[in-house]
Amino acid sequence: MNRFGERFSFTTFGESHGKAIGVIIDGTPAGIELSEEIVQVELDRRKPGGKYATARQESDKVEILSGVFEGKTTGTSIGMIIYNTNQKSKDYSNIKDLFRPGHADFTYHQKYGIRDYRGGGRSSARETAMRVAVGAVAKQILNLIGIEVFSGVSFLGGVGSEDDLDFNFAKSSEIYSLSRKFEEEQKRAIIQAKESHDSLGGTAVVKIKNSPIGLGEPIYYKLDSILSEAMMNINGTKGVEIGLGYEVTKKSGFENNDQMDIHGFKSNNAGGILGGISNGEDIDIKVHFKPTPSIFLSQETQDIFGTPKEMHLKGRHDPAIAVRGSVVAEAMARTVIADMLLLNMGRRAEDLEKIYGKK
Amino acid sequence: MNRFGERFSFTTFGESHGKAIGVIIDGTPAGIELSEEIVQVELDRRKPGGKYATARQESDKVEILSGVFEGKTTGTSIGMIIYNTNQKSKDYSNIKDLFRPGHADFTYHQKYGIRDYRGGGRSSARETAMRVAVGAVAKQILNLIGIEVFSGVSFLGGVGSEDDLDFNFAKSSEIYSLSRKFEEEQKRAIIQAKESHDSLGGTAVVKIKNSPIGLGEPIYYKLDSILSEAMMNINGTKGVEIGLGYEVTKKSGFENNDQMDIHGFKSNNAGGILGGISNGEDIDIKVHFKPTPSIFLSQETQDIFGTPKEMHLKGRHDPAIAVRGSVVAEAMARTVIADMLLLNMGRRAEDLEKIYGKK
Amino acid sequence: MNRFGERFSFTTFGESHGKAIGVIIDGTPAGIELSEEIVQVELDRRKPGGKYATARQESDKVEILSGVFEGKTTGTSIGMIIYNTNQKSKDYSNIKDLFRPGHADFTYHQKYGIRDYRGGGRSSARETAMRVAVGAVAKQILNLIGIEVFSGVSFLGGVGSEDDLDFNFAKSSEIYSLSRKFEEEQKRAIIQAKESHDSLGGTAVVKIKNSPIGLGEPIYYKLDSILSEAMMNINGTKGVEIGLGYEVTKKSGFENNDQMDIHGFKSNNAGGILGGISNGEDIDIKVHFKPTPSIFLSQETQDIFGTPKEMHLKGRHDPAIAVRGSVVAEAMARTVIADMLLLNMGRRAEDLEKIYGKK
Amino acid sequence: MNRFGERFSFTTFGESHGKAIGVIIDGTPAGIELSEEIVQVELDRRKPGGKYATARQESDKVEILSGVFEGKTTGTSIGMIIYNTNQKSKDYSNIKDLFRPGHADFTYHQKYGIRDYRGGGRSSARETAMRVAVGAVAKQILNLIGIEVFSGVSFLGGVGSEDDLDFNFAKSSEIYSLSRKFEEEQKRAIIQAKESHDSLGGTAVVKIKNSPIGLGEPIYYKLDSILSEAMMNINGTKGVEIGLGYEVTKKSGFENNDQMDIHGFKSNNAGGILGGISNGEDIDIKVHFKPTPSIFLSQETQDIFGTPKEMHLKGRHDPAIAVRGSVVAEAMARTVIADMLLLNMGRRAEDLEKIYGKK
Repeated sequence: MNRFGERFSFTTFGESHGKAIGVIIDGTPAGIELSEEIVQVELDRRKPGGKYATARQESDKVEILSGVFEGKTTGTSIGMIIYNTNQKSKDYSNIKDLFRPGHADFTYHQKYGIRDYRGGGRSSARETAMRVAVGAVAKQILNLIGIEVFSGVSFLGGVGSEDDLDFNFAKSSEIYSLSRKFEEEQKRAIIQAKESHDSLGGTAVVKIKNSPIGLGEPIYYKLDSILSEAMMNINGTKGVEIGLGYEVTKKSGFENNDQMDIHGFKSNNAGGILGGISNGEDIDIKVHFKPTPSIFLSQETQDIFGTPKEMHLKGRHDPAIAVRGSVVAEAMARTVIADMLLLNMGRRAEDLEKIYGKK
Repeated sequence: MNRFGERFSFTTFGESHGKAIGVIIDGTPAGIELSEEIVQVELDRRKPGGKYATARQESDKVEILSGVFEGKTTGTSIGMIIYNTNQKSKDYSNIKDLFRPGHADFTYHQKYGIRDYRGGGRSSARETAMRVAVGAVAKQILNLIGIEVFSGVSFLGGVGSEDDLDFNFAKSSEIYSLSRKFEEEQKRAIIQAKESHDSLGGTAVVKIKNSPIGLGEPIYYKLDSILSEAMMNINGTKGVEIGLGYEVTKKSGFENNDQMDIHGFKSNNAGGILGGISNGEDIDIKVHFKPTPSIFLSQETQDIFGTPKEMHLKGRHDPAIAVRGSVVAEAMARTVIADMLLLNMGRRAEDLEKIYGKK
Repeated sequence: MNRFGERFSFTTFGESHGKAIGVIIDGTPAGIELSEEIVQVELDRRKPGGKYATARQESDKVEILSGVFEGKTTGTSIGMIIYNTNQKSKDYSNIKDLFRPGHADFTYHQKYGIRDYRGGGRSSARETAMRVAVGAVAKQILNLIGIEVFSGVSFLGGVGSEDDLDFNFAKSSEIYSLSRKFEEEQKRAIIQAKESHDSLGGTAVVKIKNSPIGLGEPIYYKLDSILSEAMMNINGTKGVEIGLGYEVTKKSGFENNDQMDIHGFKSNNAGGILGGISNGEDIDIKVHFKPTPSIFLSQETQDIFGTPKEMHLKGRHDPAIAVRGSVVAEAMARTVIADMLLLNMGRRAEDLEKIYGKK
Repeated sequence: MNRFGERFSFTTFGESHGKAIGVIIDGTPAGIELSEEIVQVELDRRKPGGKYATARQESDKVEILSGVFEGKTTGTSIGMIIYNTNQKSKDYSNIKDLFRPGHADFTYHQKYGIRDYRGGGRSSARETAMRVAVGAVAKQILNLIGIEVFSGVSFLGGVGSEDDLDFNFAKSSEIYSLSRKFEEEQKRAIIQAKESHDSLGGTAVVKIKNSPIGLGEPIYYKLDSILSEAMMNINGTKGVEIGLGYEVTKKSGFENNDQMDIHGFKSNNAGGILGGISNGEDIDIKVHFKPTPSIFLSQETQDIFGTPKEMHLKGRHDPAIAVRGSVVAEAMARTVIADMLLLNMGRRAEDLEKIYGKK
């Protein structure tokens, strides 16, 4: 089931070390500016490489194959493809019968009885490049009405701050750190993990600004519910919070309720969502990523025959998936909002009259 | 969008103070034992009433209207209904133009321009009774192959324990407390909140035992992703964690990876899910509920014309929605597993041969 | 899979001789006038009874259980129910182990291993009452923008005309005949079939007027494709044609193409649909119904053990299902158009700007 | 909405004269033999070229990009692509502002405000190559349990026979004619149409043999309903019949009912489907195609500004789309059956026990 979304939806294919990865996007309104350059900008933010990420060098050059004509979307399905150029499949031949701890090798093998073991195959985070490509299209839709989505990393290996969330700073930080104060310490934590052949967990934060009131479709396509699905679906996520999140469990109702005065809401503990519908305040999401499971320390595992084995992984891996994960989380947030914008049209009789004219 | 699930799916209707609430369940295999008594047992666990819950007295007597013949399911859609018998709509007439803080009144009004204001209408947690009814049907399916689902409350108002999770104790606890040690203190916290006209947040925990390996459909219908959607969809949820959850952000890869020896996995930090697919270990979910928004202290709000107003709520409300929320979370977990069991059939060519016979 | 439609969708439950039949409608815009009376008007057109239909006397009194508040839809799911009041289950006890020829008894039994044999259970056309109820809601949506849907019967037992399609006459005809000229002969054919304990096939015609241009979602939710699905789904349908239908196979391209002059299309062979999208002309659909399979002549069949048996059916049945089938076809056409109206919103960037305001 | 199917589903992209056309297939069971050669065999049957078809020369060489590993499907999504190599876009530059009669130019333009006018863009039948590619994958699934699907052309320009349906002969006929007797006359009709710069309508027939009993999901995913949707969705279809089809309207119930004796059904008027579920008999479908709208006679039309224009089309087109349409219809029938095979698993409690083992 390789499809996400209802009205603005997408379907992906592709394995880490196959020929290519690709996506088909469905539901993009006609008449929106789109080009490979626009998509590439977002992809480059997620691209592997650099001191703090995997050494795998993928140019991740996207091609648009359909759905765009003379620089504008046509309302038809948009096909995009990225050919894999730097697969080092040999890196994996020695582990083809081993289950890498923390990876999906075991479960794919047990479920399907066959798997493309090279780089995790379909379960690899490489697929998330397509999510970022889709997010770029969603961004063009959101731009029509001025919705902005930001992201960054608040914690890495326990280092960081709940409150120091500078989304502009994050844009230019090599590790998308939200904290000018903690960025250096976070970088050191990454380097230290790398040098000890280990990895780090971390937390990404996404903020959606200027959302119209009314997004989210009760009661089984609520905005928070689908955002949560989208975030938990990203490789390595183990927790999702909206607004105050976990902290609400320690609050009283009086403390937690966002009261209103003449200017509107006096606080935003709810994170911009009430009853699964956006209330016009900032939508705040926290996404908790586990440490990269691919580490280079000796680990105990089994092979596909159930025999215990010692495993010494080699290869190229991000020491902290939360860093690039934040870019993916931002993209997924955009696709959810684009979907909700379309679904919300037709919520009232007057919407139909606006589009079709009154009888 | 009032439907949840793909193969085992359900659609609900009904407002808090309307004539009735109901559900249609789709995809139940034929030949499963089902009766109103079986469903009622689960509903009674969620039923309002008692010292620690709302004073609203609903008998919540379910009727099965279709899909069952001579005590067995027939494979056709199952209609169930609960008539509302104890609606005190007058309780709400004085607040029909006011937005209750922390409630969906504001967002429903802004989205639709019209709403059934009585008891929150469609946004009321009363609808969750139908989720529990569906969970009862899912339970019958899970029983076929021995899957068990447990739930309880670990924290209320900050009181509780991460580790003391006694699911058997929770079954008989009036507040579904998982902790024999903290139950009394948790009860006191509830009473104290009630007496101060306020409310408490809390955390529910769900554990799924004996799940087969292989549940979850990559890569956009992953088990953790859909569980997260299901949990975040329950009224009042603000955070969801799988396995170690938030704690993984502080772990190194080596600490977090579940290594294997000859007996299988040596730990279960992953909470039973790898790459979105069940690995045969216990599936562990934490669900964080906000404090009940309906409190009886004076609060600032607006009316539907944007005029600031002081609000003094009256009515009948749970002081801690996490308590009954845990029953709903358990039910939703069951529906997700039932859905995944059906979706997983056909994952391999040999599945078709098992059902249809080899050519 | 008891759900139909994407954005305006509905799910039904209920067996012919169970407690009740019902429906949940999803996606109705808020603010539309709706009442039980409005729905009842349509149901009464489908109601059993009369000289030319089954003798089963069902009052078919609908109740709206949710989704409507103070006479208007609220945007939430609409639950409707009709209790079965005139089930004569005893009529069926003698045939519980027999497969009625032309009925779904055999296939339900083989598929599910269990079935509610009374009156065909779930496979009974009794369920179509709910489709008509949904059609009544769709009609209220279509009224907003002036779309009208008509239906009637063109042929019964081979009697009728392709060209004499008087939809106003059909409204008042007891057998919904489209032909003032052939109505009497068609009535005689029904009576004759009834008296010889046999039944008649027939053709229903649906015409949709004032459809906006642009309905239909390429390329797998085309308007003609979904109309065809909807029509073929009605009990007893064996053929569907759009526009000229079958006749196009004998035309040349030049004869068949609808050319345009300054006033628009010069002909409407296409039946109002080009490339799966409405072109603003009348949408014309023909639906071919088989003769009622329940006849009272001796027939050969098997019982559930595979033993050949002679069958002498008793009971109450329409001699020609096409008559009431035309009402169902009209209702289904309305639901498809309502769905397409909602799906079409968002086809262009400017639609979003109309609803949300330009940035 | 570029997706078709539920469990075995596919999504396509691509315009007639864009860079490429492609598909993502979802839900293929793991462990099925698949290769580009296997897919190419089917594509070659649909390939343009030859005396009786369009002169467009496309090699239609398919590449599989994912989902297959070492010759077997892995259960993950299958990406396939065909690059367009022989686009003569210049052929279309002179008609970019004109609506070709009988084509979707008008409706796409009106709906989206922008369109890729080259060769019909997304509305071109070129996209059906991907349906044939999907059908090749479905064929591998159907082979597992011995289901066979045949197709051919029964009528062209009114020439042919209802009864002379020789599916083996059709395989080797250049025009897939089902009639040894009428083939020559049909060929002459094509040539004659071609020479007079006009085109022909026709009828394709599909036969499904060895279907298991029980396929089709009541009551809104009935086998006949979805087959009808699938067929009506093919470019140029204006009518669909199941079994006797239109002829049933002239039959009495006694004549039409398929009675049973000790050997099973004595006739197959129903075309293998009762109540929307396969009954084990041959499934018979007729699909009526309009004449190719692209003809080379002078026609009246409008341009995009509403000005009447005379149109003289040039280009390369099939004189009778029914010929290649029959291959597409066969492929679509296969995808529907593959989907239904998967959906039917889990219809009974014992199915779960067969797959998961009894408790």
